[in-house]
Amino acid sequence: MLIFYDIPSKIGAWSPNTWKTRYSLNFKGIPYKTVWVEYPDIEKTIKDLGIAASATKPDGKTPHYTVPAIYDPATKTGLSDSFAIAKYLDEKYPDKPTLVPRGTEALQKAYIDAMMSKFDALWQFMFPKTTWILNEKSEEPFRRTRKQKFEKTMEEMYPQGEKRKEEWKRLEEGLGQIDKWYGKEDILVMGGEDKVCFADFAFAGFVIWIRILFGKESEEWKDVSGWQNERWGRMIQTLEKYE
Amino acid sequence: MLIFYDIPSKIGAWSPNTWKTRYSLNFKGIPYKTVWVEYPDIEKTIKDLGIAASATKPDGKTPHYTVPAIYDPATKTGLSDSFAIAKYLDEKYPDKPTLVPRGTEALQKAYIDAMMSKFDALWQFMFPKTTWILNEKSEEPFRRTRKQKFEKTMEEMYPQGEKRKEEWKRLEEGLGQIDKWYGKEDILVMGGEDKVCFADFAFAGFVIWIRILFGKESEEWKDVSGWQNERWGRMIQTLEKYE
Repeated sequence: MLIFYDIPSKIGAWSPNTWKTRYSLNFKGIPYKTVWVEYPDIEKTIKDLGIAASATKPDGKTPHYTVPAIYDPATKTGLSDSFAIAKYLDEKYPDKPTLVPRGTEALQKAYIDAMMSKFDALWQFMFPKTTWILNEKSEEPFRRTRKQKFEKTMEEMYPQGEKRKEEWKRLEEGLGQIDKWYGKEDILVMGGEDKVCFADFAFAGFVIWIRILFGKESEEWKDVSGWQNERWGRMIQTLEKYE
Repeated sequence: MLIFYDIPSKIGAWSPNTWKTRYSLNFKGIPYKTVWVEYPDIEKTIKDLGIAASATKPDGKTPHYTVPAIYDPATKTGLSDSFAIAKYLDEKYPDKPTLVPRGTEALQKAYIDAMMSKFDALWQFMFPKTTWILNEKSEEPFRRTRKQKFEKTMEEMYPQGEKRKEEWKRLEEGLGQIDKWYGKEDILVMGGEDKVCFADFAFAGFVIWIRILFGKESEEWKDVSGWQNERWGRMIQTLEKYE
């Protein structure tokens, strides 16, 4: 059984990045066991698996070890980075549905780049919300690294009053830019309702982050799932069987 | 025979946007005649063809009429916007090679969005260079609209000395971001050397704009075609048969 490394919280799986891999594994129907790793333990866990750093820290030099990561006992392979994991799964489990169909890798990477560029307004809502549901052990480093980056506390970052309305509107407009790429009736990026690919999960990871942290019954989730003619609500519902 | 509307200059076809359609038509092998339209005549030409505005002017309201445009006498259809034209050509000429393979429309649109976001440093070089090769009739409105937008003349905009080196470096870094999406050996966005799609032409339109305005023998083209392990030089060469 494959091992999947995820970050815990007081309310279960939450991370947009690890959700990409959770979705991917469920989509492919590969049995796996989740190992929960708090932030301060990520580096050691990943290094012990013999996995190289997937990025560098803000200084551009120090190796940055991240989850999602997987360990596949069948091939004795450890791997991090959700896109690299998707490609690995396609290669090693070719009889399962495909996450990165031949010829779509660069297009999917560009989609993710473009999608991320529309999320300007997202972080100020989601980083604070995340802080408030992390376990104590993860909360401290999460707070510290974000404070270094944004030069404010998570409580200062979280928009209030009129600012909140404006920034929420800006998030809606950002998603509206993504909406324009899709055909009118399409729910998934490759069209229709069943041609799922990794890019759908890459995007859905961020949308489900909102749903999980605000809650299914919240006004915020009603907003997001209703925006753009309910496109994102329908998308998350279509992908629900892979949660 | 289909009619293709393009903007002339002292040195022939140059516009990155119309090149997308020129490439598309040549790729599909559809016979066409080019009609050259100077900037001040675009609006009337497009309106006379019964084509709706493809965009709005910077005020967000006034309709903006653009080329490329085509008129297809076989179906009495006029159309602008290079992506819409590509889709039309695929639909009406299904026996010709396909520009937007089924399932790739949203991905290609996202690719173009992401690609454009890496061109920050491009405009300051290419808008002035364009000004200097336009015919007199087009030069005036081209200068005027860019001066309104950037609040400087094209001569002031063109980077000089140390600034030029820095901005040229920044352009290289922008293209480096695009490069990362591609497989090591791939020349085209869908992989390999022969699976051409519209997104290749959308990108190549900007690269050939550089080659045409600086010239094949220029230092600048040597730079651009050599960057990222000669990826862009090889791409333009691969697509040369569709010029």
